[in-house]
Amino acid sequence: MSYDDQIRYSLEGFPQEEITEIRDIIPYAKGEREVDLLLTNARLINVFSGTIEPQAIAIAQGRVVGFGEYPAQKVLDLEGRFLSPGLIDAHCHIESSMVGVREYARAILPHGVTTVVTDFHEIANVMGTRGIRLMREGMGATPFNLYCMLPSCVPATSLETSGAEIQAKDLKDLMEEEWVRGLGEMMNFPGVIHGDPQVLKKISMTQAHGKRVDGHAPGLSGKELAAYIAAGIASDHECTTKAEAEEKLNQGMYIMIREGSTARNLEELIKIVTPLNACRCMFVTDDRHPADLIAEGGIDHCVRKAMRRGLDPVIALQMATINPARYFPLPGIGAIAPGYQADLVVLEDLNAFRISQVFQAGRLVADGGTILPGVIDEKKVRAENTVHLPKISAEQFRITAEGARAKVIELIPQQIITKKAIHEVKTQDGLAVADPSRDILKIAVVERYKGTGNIGLGFVKGFGLKDGAIASSVAHDSHNIIVVGTGDKAMAQAVHGIAEMHGGLIAVKDGKVTASLPLPIGGLMSDLSIEKVSDGLTRLHHKVKEMGCTLEEPFMALSFLALPVIPELKITDRGLVDVTRFEIVPLFGDA
Amino acid sequence: MSYDDQIRYSLEGFPQEEITEIRDIIPYAKGEREVDLLLTNARLINVFSGTIEPQAIAIAQGRVVGFGEYPAQKVLDLEGRFLSPGLIDAHCHIESSMVGVREYARAILPHGVTTVVTDFHEIANVMGTRGIRLMREGMGATPFNLYCMLPSCVPATSLETSGAEIQAKDLKDLMEEEWVRGLGEMMNFPGVIHGDPQVLKKISMTQAHGKRVDGHAPGLSGKELAAYIAAGIASDHECTTKAEAEEKLNQGMYIMIREGSTARNLEELIKIVTPLNACRCMFVTDDRHPADLIAEGGIDHCVRKAMRRGLDPVIALQMATINPARYFPLPGIGAIAPGYQADLVVLEDLNAFRISQVFQAGRLVADGGTILPGVIDEKKVRAENTVHLPKISAEQFRITAEGARAKVIELIPQQIITKKAIHEVKTQDGLAVADPSRDILKIAVVERYKGTGNIGLGFVKGFGLKDGAIASSVAHDSHNIIVVGTGDKAMAQAVHGIAEMHGGLIAVKDGKVTASLPLPIGGLMSDLSIEKVSDGLTRLHHKVKEMGCTLEEPFMALSFLALPVIPELKITDRGLVDVTRFEIVPLFGDA
Repeated sequence: MSYDDQIRYSLEGFPQEEITEIRDIIPYAKGEREVDLLLTNARLINVFSGTIEPQAIAIAQGRVVGFGEYPAQKVLDLEGRFLSPGLIDAHCHIESSMVGVREYARAILPHGVTTVVTDFHEIANVMGTRGIRLMREGMGATPFNLYCMLPSCVPATSLETSGAEIQAKDLKDLMEEEWVRGLGEMMNFPGVIHGDPQVLKKISMTQAHGKRVDGHAPGLSGKELAAYIAAGIASDHECTTKAEAEEKLNQGMYIMIREGSTARNLEELIKIVTPLNACRCMFVTDDRHPADLIAEGGIDHCVRKAMRRGLDPVIALQMATINPARYFPLPGIGAIAPGYQADLVVLEDLNAFRISQVFQAGRLVADGGTILPGVIDEKKVRAENTVHLPKISAEQFRITAEGARAKVIELIPQQIITKKAIHEVKTQDGLAVADPSRDILKIAVVERYKGTGNIGLGFVKGFGLKDGAIASSVAHDSHNIIVVGTGDKAMAQAVHGIAEMHGGLIAVKDGKVTASLPLPIGGLMSDLSIEKVSDGLTRLHHKVKEMGCTLEEPFMALSFLALPVIPELKITDRGLVDVTRFEIVPLFGDA
Repeated sequence: MSYDDQIRYSLEGFPQEEITEIRDIIPYAKGEREVDLLLTNARLINVFSGTIEPQAIAIAQGRVVGFGEYPAQKVLDLEGRFLSPGLIDAHCHIESSMVGVREYARAILPHGVTTVVTDFHEIANVMGTRGIRLMREGMGATPFNLYCMLPSCVPATSLETSGAEIQAKDLKDLMEEEWVRGLGEMMNFPGVIHGDPQVLKKISMTQAHGKRVDGHAPGLSGKELAAYIAAGIASDHECTTKAEAEEKLNQGMYIMIREGSTARNLEELIKIVTPLNACRCMFVTDDRHPADLIAEGGIDHCVRKAMRRGLDPVIALQMATINPARYFPLPGIGAIAPGYQADLVVLEDLNAFRISQVFQAGRLVADGGTILPGVIDEKKVRAENTVHLPKISAEQFRITAEGARAKVIELIPQQIITKKAIHEVKTQDGLAVADPSRDILKIAVVERYKGTGNIGLGFVKGFGLKDGAIASSVAHDSHNIIVVGTGDKAMAQAVHGIAEMHGGLIAVKDGKVTASLPLPIGGLMSDLSIEKVSDGLTRLHHKVKEMGCTLEEPFMALSFLALPVIPELKITDRGLVDVTRFEIVPLFGDA
């Protein structure tokens, strides 16, 4: 029996990989075998000691194996540049970038973000847990650390039809996987506080796996907050004020300071951070749109902004690396030390956080802000169609006038909450119709999964379209097709156009599609490059502006009108929702 | 189907307890049900925020459920006293206190220590994993948080006979238990560094369970340290200098600052702690003797001493509570916040760390330094005899003179290392004998488990006994019987006396036992109160002093002479060990 056979024999019943891995790395650490790469003359940002020290770093088998002089196949002199661990985004929805994981990685790796913890909440609403697996598979062999928190609230409410329903039992298999670190933002805080069995079951199942439950509880305070925390919710990324964040921190929550594309809370929340509580804080992006990802980046932008606001650079980097790594935990990630994966960011300048090179698992993946050729796995994954509509006709969008006054969803600029207004509606041949002169347009949500033929109909004020329709298959959180228009024909054409693209965004005018952006991955994401998506969006915005719309991001405004957890008046495929009363209400009449 | 049946049904496949627990606590947190206890007017030491805040704390079902006003069955006005989370000892060997867990808890609870993470390394050398289970069972229903790290190195070496051998497979069942948090101090650092398969197997098995591997690597540095860390060893409690601790901290190790009875490193190591690295540091006692436990306490003593040395009290308390709780982790322990177990220490004075009351899981267990009646489970557990000797006679201790010069173990005062000396030995009738006039005495280690009849024989210098013998069944780490004496008859009588007591400490003079302390639990621990053990030790020390011994703690000195991992010359049941060469050597001659 050889030495190797003996080890295998004695390992019976234990996982084989780990021991092999340990055994493999030790000779490098001892300096007995040539390491792959030695980075000399670094100014190492040590997130353990909280110091910056001159250091040489030896890398082998994708891991840091030691500090100091080592025999190496390749030596790279960093000439005194700073070296930070790769950055970690502790909470994001990759779907919001409108591209898949590979393309997301291509965008974010040059920004020094080597790890994201994502909650595939959006694709899960479309395709269930299968969507989560497909997202992961779509990543291919791209060198990027992808961790997942399982969506906790699919569908978001019972007042809509989503593509999937996820119960605790559906999460069980995934929960056992290593890349899954727990249960994602528990938005259903009333469910937690009122002890909803299905909600508690998801929490206890996660805890039984020794994994984390992330929170989402905007404004929750006092005894209700205590109940939410006592139930085991560990973090929150929805704080908007210093006082709110302090109350949550004091009661034991980890505070995820969010700087997204729309929700930007860093400037306010960074005020709570002190050296004695910093290890309970981290950064997240939540939702970042293509243009922001390209221009600002992600967590690097948080670090930069926090330092500009006066936070100690080492604390800012602890919050962006070791703190989230310890919170979830993400073993072997988040620091530069023996045994840790060699995810490294070389900085030209610490205070400006100007990045020159990025390594993932010891491999140079980006240089000078650009991804290197061959890094991203280009293997094409065919997206399956998730838009299934029965035949769509203009007649389906007709509203019979059942009264003179109707409820109208009124947009509030820059906000996702709406106002419930009552207006006289224009009628024509017994039908209630749009009245662009008063900016009262028709809105509809068309169920797109099960062929139910459900169409929720209503009125909306705030888009300013003079003629035509715009539609989208991105409609939080169920992602049915939402459409706003001045007439039934244009609305039907827009919805039809979305179906033809297998999902996407569209603008229709004078019987013609004036601009569109196909999003064939679940109706949420493109299979093109993030730059093309960004350009496509710009073109769409331009066309919609020409149609009279004054909103800066009309499709985003549109996407939140179907989210029946945000007050006051919303619309789903089942009809108009009075969010305050949490029920479907009739379109006509004041009540 | 009732509501409860429904929940049970929907829970199929998930652990029942957790969800019940969450559901039970929520109504209290919301203030809908009267809590058990409300502590008002506390100055809460908040280890999350790093602040001290005026607060009221509501407790129900043994847990903190919320802050502020709550309807309560009982209200206790703390009148502005400080309130700290219960203290945590991150590494100790309870056996060193010479009492079982119940009695240990009785001693340490009034000191505010509500949680210990113990490594039952000593009893495991005597009884294997069964000893670990018996220790836990012996605790009964005593309200004390006992966590365990499994002994990694039993026996310590191959040069001795221990009561048990523990291989990776023997640890598997225990490793799955919740109270077991990982693998205890990996003393066999050469084994790690050289890739010993059995050692790596223990490490990888622990990691596969997602649990911790504690370290023990005095003085290890540079590339060997890197290899040890890269193999997955997470902590070290053996640092003695600031530089050593800094090197280990910088490379990612958690630093356990030790303040034991003999090894006292706090004063030196506290210098490394800064606000930016404090969350990587904690306190441990390792080994504390009965008198010190009674007089000084444990982790409370560390906190007190650290604060006297200028450490911020809040940082000191973070190191004594939340830091170890997060390291292992010990969920629901280490802080005062909703959902956390209500382990609380009420302080009369923060800076002097003067304790008035201690709560464990919401129950008052100690008041004014005294344990409350009924707290400790008094159910007697019968100890089984672990001392199994064949008939012992004086003849067995005879040493045939095979030369004029012999190797002599020379004690070095206050240290556990020894000197390997060569001396002329006195001979009589062809036998080498003790020569008390030159303080050269005989020493023997008698195997006590398997009836092998193994007796290792040698000479020792430093005890100063003029007449008689002393013996002990506490002899690190195999805990055979070790005896030092001026003559064979006294030595045989002492060993016989130990066997009669089923283990313990003994002094023999003029054919009579002058003092003894029975340690029937594994030959290591008493079943009496810790005060009686302390008194018994004092009496023994007094008697041994009368016999001419000048050592302050003769039995402790004795106990380390059988530990063949500490240089230079030691003795086991297999003979004299040259530790530098790591082999058994002949007694006579210079080599």
